[in-house]
Amino acid sequence: MTEPTRTSLLLTPGPVTLPMETKVVMLEDRSSGEDCMVERLETARLYLRRLAKGSEQVAVIPLPGSATYANEAVLRTFVPAGGKVLVHSNGAYGDWLLAICRAMGTPHTALRTSPVRPCQVDQFRQALLSDPDITHVMLVHCETSSGLLNPIHEIAELCCELGKGLLIDAVATFGAYDLNIGDLKYQALVLSSNKCLEGPPGLAWVIADRAVLEASKDNARSLSLDLWDQNQHMERSKCFRFTPPTHVVAAVAAALRRHQAEGGSAARLRRYRANWRSLVDRMRAIGFETLLSDDDSAPIVATFRNPADPAFDFKTLYGALAKRGLIAFPGRLAVQNTFRIGCMGAVSESDLVQVADAIHDILLEEGVREFGSGLSRVA
Amino acid sequence: MTEPTRTSLLLTPGPVTLPMETKVVMLEDRSSGEDCMVERLETARLYLRRLAKGSEQVAVIPLPGSATYANEAVLRTFVPAGGKVLVHSNGAYGDWLLAICRAMGTPHTALRTSPVRPCQVDQFRQALLSDPDITHVMLVHCETSSGLLNPIHEIAELCCELGKGLLIDAVATFGAYDLNIGDLKYQALVLSSNKCLEGPPGLAWVIADRAVLEASKDNARSLSLDLWDQNQHMERSKCFRFTPPTHVVAAVAAALRRHQAEGGSAARLRRYRANWRSLVDRMRAIGFETLLSDDDSAPIVATFRNPADPAFDFKTLYGALAKRGLIAFPGRLAVQNTFRIGCMGAVSESDLVQVADAIHDILLEEGVREFGSGLSRVA
Repeated sequence: MTEPTRTSLLLTPGPVTLPMETKVVMLEDRSSGEDCMVERLETARLYLRRLAKGSEQVAVIPLPGSATYANEAVLRTFVPAGGKVLVHSNGAYGDWLLAICRAMGTPHTALRTSPVRPCQVDQFRQALLSDPDITHVMLVHCETSSGLLNPIHEIAELCCELGKGLLIDAVATFGAYDLNIGDLKYQALVLSSNKCLEGPPGLAWVIADRAVLEASKDNARSLSLDLWDQNQHMERSKCFRFTPPTHVVAAVAAALRRHQAEGGSAARLRRYRANWRSLVDRMRAIGFETLLSDDDSAPIVATFRNPADPAFDFKTLYGALAKRGLIAFPGRLAVQNTFRIGCMGAVSESDLVQVADAIHDILLEEGVREFGSGLSRVA
Repeated sequence: MTEPTRTSLLLTPGPVTLPMETKVVMLEDRSSGEDCMVERLETARLYLRRLAKGSEQVAVIPLPGSATYANEAVLRTFVPAGGKVLVHSNGAYGDWLLAICRAMGTPHTALRTSPVRPCQVDQFRQALLSDPDITHVMLVHCETSSGLLNPIHEIAELCCELGKGLLIDAVATFGAYDLNIGDLKYQALVLSSNKCLEGPPGLAWVIADRAVLEASKDNARSLSLDLWDQNQHMERSKCFRFTPPTHVVAAVAAALRRHQAEGGSAARLRRYRANWRSLVDRMRAIGFETLLSDDDSAPIVATFRNPADPAFDFKTLYGALAKRGLIAFPGRLAVQNTFRIGCMGAVSESDLVQVADAIHDILLEEGVREFGSGLSRVA
């Protein structure tokens, strides 16, 4: 079995590299009912509510599993029988929302927009005005498959104006961006403990308007993914309904303490911006081109066009980077012939400069001479 | 915040105490697509198939989250439209299966039997013969809420005889008991990485008859909990569909290596039996009575009747044990006025003797003089 002796640096847009102080708590065994676990969970819930600038009228519901489970749980719990959802997609994660609706048989309309430009609020207005049956809108704040940031504030205003329930997949941005429930007036927002909160994967969360949640009893047609049921149980007992991933829960609580100590979301966004800027500047100096314009990108991940040089092969690059302990991520791309470098997690500007330099070295070794993408030069 | 400095010994029937060598791999950060992670997962799947004595006609499907998710996923994926399930319950975990069916609207009949005696195969025969609409049977092999073991082999034979699909919740027993798919001919069996496999919670598994699984496309009406979809994706790509709990996956792989090194399920059952025997003998010597007869109990957990002495208070006992680093578990009981001590995990006979002695000391300090339960003395 290939077992590299030192931990790699993850330059993927999740899972991200975690600081040791966050992971070391996973060496403890805890019963989920122990006082220290109950306190950790309660502190975590209150901190997430604070990050969302929520009052007591906001529920914070942890859901073990992938964030995709939480997206499904939100669609199940918040869209009642007779509801219909406008689902936006401009990338792989928007497509998952559509796949969830198809699998569940939830009435929905797809609004597909360009994978390389942010969607426009008018595209939503037109879709909503042309189908009065639509009761809810769901979209991804930032497409992790590219880094493309969608104009969530304008869409939230439109949903308010037209009286539509807003559901947000903020998996890639919560913890770095302010997503205040008071401003955005969402019914539910999905976030991950991983990504910008820099905890281990395995525990998702939903931040929800308590009044809407309380009216959603019996909507879910699922026990596991019923947010109403999980919430009422947790508010009563301070516990999960089923055995939670105790080691992950403890590490997530540690990750949130670190998030607070770093200075919260604003400090984290500043650090990611610096990481992203260093990476993109260095890669451009080498000759690479980004998929997106700088203004349209969230600094959680940078997507580069493959070099036009026929000597370029991503698998070779991936393998050579991995040998140096640098893990890039080829999968789930918004656009073919691109690759991504994540800028989240316990990584610094110097790590990202090191990555760019390693890419340069490897490609020179492989005989890649033309780093720019022929495609975008033609365009 | 209450943060005991040393890790407690978990005497709960899950999560269980883990050996350090299983947990230490959680200090590594891994991308789920890295070669070493793909290999770990593949090795784990093959090992679990071997434990179930399965051929290539058996699928092994990991599902991030609680085992309850996997129970729901099995009911969703394996019971098609037009199906009806006979759901047995003689405790809290059987009741969860019923709650899943109620939440999903799955046609079902409840077969409730005594919480202190194993169910009888004739109870199943009668229920199945009286309702020919029933297509499937689902039951819990061992009720973790008491330790009660149900006669799974006889029920499996009956299901074969009557042509009913068998679905087994083996969360509390897989890894200690042989649950061979060749003998039992189940359509699907749910297991936990936690409990007898002694991994961290956060990753459940389903072992399934591949032919039945392949015929179950589009049954699930869920993306997250669709075992058909997860399986086809994993067989094609060797990966999860969504970000898995990478640290937990790595630790589960380590736990399975340890399971194999210990001598597999037989060795583990021997160790648990020795743990359970030592505990029960010592507790009886003190004056405690068990809820179940020895023959009906799985040695994963022992359930004791509360002492009749009015000076006894479980919360006081729990707190005093916790101060000594010994965590008992009060919740989800099959019968009121009982408490449980788990015998699974990285715990030894001497640990369980220490627990019994600590309970004795604490109760004497609290002024409990009569350890026997008045109830069963009368009975």
